[in-house]
Amino acid sequence: MAERLTKREDDYSRWYTDLIIQGKLADYSPVKGCMVIRPNGYALWEKIQGYLDRMFKESGHVNAYFPLFIPESFMEKEAEHVEGFSPECAVVTHGGGALLEEKLYIRPTSETIIWSMYKKWIMSYRDLPILINQWANVVRWEMRTRLFLRTTEFLWQEGHTAHATFDEAEEETKLILDIYRKFAEEYLAVSVLVGKKSEAEKFAGALHTYCIEAMMQDKKALQSGTSHNLGQNFAKAFDVKFQDKDGNLQSVWATSWGVSTRLIGALIMAHSDDNGLVLPPKMATNQVVIIPIWKSDEEKSRVLQFANQVFEELKQDIKVILDDREQFKPGYKFTEWELQGIPVRVEIGPRDEANKQVVIVRRDTREKNNVTATEIRNKINSLLVTMQKDLLDKSRAFRENNTYTVDDYDDFKEQLENPGGFFSAHWCGSANCEFKIKEETKATIRVIPFEQPDEPGKCMFCGHDSKGRVIFARAY
Amino acid sequence: MAERLTKREDDYSRWYTDLIIQGKLADYSPVKGCMVIRPNGYALWEKIQGYLDRMFKESGHVNAYFPLFIPESFMEKEAEHVEGFSPECAVVTHGGGALLEEKLYIRPTSETIIWSMYKKWIMSYRDLPILINQWANVVRWEMRTRLFLRTTEFLWQEGHTAHATFDEAEEETKLILDIYRKFAEEYLAVSVLVGKKSEAEKFAGALHTYCIEAMMQDKKALQSGTSHNLGQNFAKAFDVKFQDKDGNLQSVWATSWGVSTRLIGALIMAHSDDNGLVLPPKMATNQVVIIPIWKSDEEKSRVLQFANQVFEELKQDIKVILDDREQFKPGYKFTEWELQGIPVRVEIGPRDEANKQVVIVRRDTREKNNVTATEIRNKINSLLVTMQKDLLDKSRAFRENNTYTVDDYDDFKEQLENPGGFFSAHWCGSANCEFKIKEETKATIRVIPFEQPDEPGKCMFCGHDSKGRVIFARAY
Repeated sequence: MAERLTKREDDYSRWYTDLIIQGKLADYSPVKGCMVIRPNGYALWEKIQGYLDRMFKESGHVNAYFPLFIPESFMEKEAEHVEGFSPECAVVTHGGGALLEEKLYIRPTSETIIWSMYKKWIMSYRDLPILINQWANVVRWEMRTRLFLRTTEFLWQEGHTAHATFDEAEEETKLILDIYRKFAEEYLAVSVLVGKKSEAEKFAGALHTYCIEAMMQDKKALQSGTSHNLGQNFAKAFDVKFQDKDGNLQSVWATSWGVSTRLIGALIMAHSDDNGLVLPPKMATNQVVIIPIWKSDEEKSRVLQFANQVFEELKQDIKVILDDREQFKPGYKFTEWELQGIPVRVEIGPRDEANKQVVIVRRDTREKNNVTATEIRNKINSLLVTMQKDLLDKSRAFRENNTYTVDDYDDFKEQLENPGGFFSAHWCGSANCEFKIKEETKATIRVIPFEQPDEPGKCMFCGHDSKGRVIFARAY
Repeated sequence: MAERLTKREDDYSRWYTDLIIQGKLADYSPVKGCMVIRPNGYALWEKIQGYLDRMFKESGHVNAYFPLFIPESFMEKEAEHVEGFSPECAVVTHGGGALLEEKLYIRPTSETIIWSMYKKWIMSYRDLPILINQWANVVRWEMRTRLFLRTTEFLWQEGHTAHATFDEAEEETKLILDIYRKFAEEYLAVSVLVGKKSEAEKFAGALHTYCIEAMMQDKKALQSGTSHNLGQNFAKAFDVKFQDKDGNLQSVWATSWGVSTRLIGALIMAHSDDNGLVLPPKMATNQVVIIPIWKSDEEKSRVLQFANQVFEELKQDIKVILDDREQFKPGYKFTEWELQGIPVRVEIGPRDEANKQVVIVRRDTREKNNVTATEIRNKINSLLVTMQKDLLDKSRAFRENNTYTVDDYDDFKEQLENPGGFFSAHWCGSANCEFKIKEETKATIRVIPFEQPDEPGKCMFCGHDSKGRVIFARAY
């Protein structure tokens, strides 16, 4: 606790790690590439799960659970899929003391095992749609890992739906994308761009992939959620057909979509500062901490009595804690709760008690205000709403202020180094240009935005015709 | 749906499987020993999670997440533990296309990985207690599996706490046992015996294990939850010491405790009947289904209007659905909802509409009653409370009526075959007698109950002195 965080401007990456370790959000584990999510971090995941699960259910989805293990032969059924995922799988070769007849892959994602079951469950159009989601752990063997953002094992939700038509599958894919956007903006307070991935960046086995893409404080992009229209690829690989209303057999249409514990990384990186975590009020387990301040016994007695009154008043509709620990000084508590990211601090000293008022401090701006006891609950409730909105506005403004329109490849390369950010540029659509740009600059096409002017132009790399601009950036 | 369930008296085991498959609670997967938990079954797990998680949090516990993988060397640090679990582990030998330097076990339980982290986190008495729980999947390679009751992969919660003294750890162990008992009785409506396991039946690595033990309808026992006082075994294996208030270094005391998706099996087996699932109201996602019945269009119009009124009335404080699907006949719907176990069926026909009344049918007893529209909400609310209580009473009475006091080993063997049940018998405490009895009868000591008369006697097997009776039964 006594340690200071590395400052963002000194070393953004180390600041991020410091914040997570010192804030007890997560820790490195003795298993290579795997992290331990500590209670402070897991509470954020529980919030994410709670909100998203409700949104999924309100839109007709149900939860289920499929096996962790995927037989090797299943992985091999969808050509692009196996090529994309097999190299990064963990493989079980022994079980119960014996060599297995067939190797089992730890799921890197569950399309194959799920579609092998859908084959049993889907006969007729009456069995469709299937709208199933799963909360689970998955494993992808990663060479370079980073807490929350990229770990060998991670937690996520993966939706897998089955439909009678392409249009229905497409509608589902977009419905979920909009749930992800809404969740990122209204709960995480992270503004995102929505759109489509290029062929090179799409999910292995999908027709196409939609995504939400956020900008972190170091101006790098973070892919925060993806929604895939899988077409009939998995249905064909697993021979899943249904009888339509006219009695004809057709292959089923599929979608899959997911967000992961990576969102916790996004949340941390988007808002936090050199003093620690900054949480939007909706994501905070505790929204307010009351810190009583006294010197003499006489002061202690009346300050604590008043602090308890305030606590009782606030707890009617606010998640509040009273930190009356005697072994720590107020200054130490301020630092600790700033590190933890509690949105509002209420300070109560002897003079405050005498005036029946408190000092309110916002975590995000650190702005201080005196508030009288009679108005404290109203003031804090409206402050929490304001902070939630302000953080989103700030996130949006930051991305907009760091997004540049470029037409010249040399300008692009220069600006990518300094100042960095998102670059809206024309691209001809060829995988070759995309690949060359990535090779030369480490920037990738993050998203082909849905919303952009109808403005044809010339590819900044090759000069051929382009139908519109796409967003290039370096990414996590 | 058209299939009939096997009757319990014809083949209890097949009835159980039929109910799960036809009720779409779960399905067999292509991975040996692993099941798929379908949405109807997963909804029960979500209820279990929701209630238990709240009880854990109310008693000061927090959630976290530790890696799926356990390095082989960790498993080997606690001698009893490795002996108990290693033979049933799945082992990862390859990751990312390469042979691993050290094999990774898929966690069969997480004591070892968690205590390797507690070594980093615990320095002083100020760091204690740690009260962490984890919701996770675990893998134990099983030869003979049964849906929900015993599967190679299963879902569970595992609590792992760290304390400064034996007494605190013991208190925690019993606190959790009482949460399990309360949850089984008040939510699952399953009466349980609480007590201690024998040395032979305790957890591998524990000082002692407490448990809740239930009786299924075939009179076999089902271990439904266990809470272990691990003493200092894991602290010593992982060298976890803390500085006490006097500055001395001491090994930390530990507990662990868990319940799993096996509870869904307990819930099914405890209450259900030849028509399908019977759910206590607190465990039902939907508590009431309204089924409108009509022949003519004129009837349809007024019945549906009235049914909608009833639906609006009930949904104010009851989870209710209106099944107005036109493609299915009422009789078909009755059968389907009985299979699904919805606690209360409301039938509304033309004559009911004319009289502004409905017919209410209890799922458990199938008792029918007419209720006027004005009193329906009150009646159903109190009926739900009654059903919850009646199911628990029935469960308790069933166990009590099928528990026998025996003193003679030949009597025991005979009665174990017929009628079967729980047998309260004297046992000298020797592992040898316990082993011989198991070998000869397949009955094990299920629990040494906390509550029993202070009645010394003679071991029914060897005739030596016994301090009290224990419960023998055949078990799942």
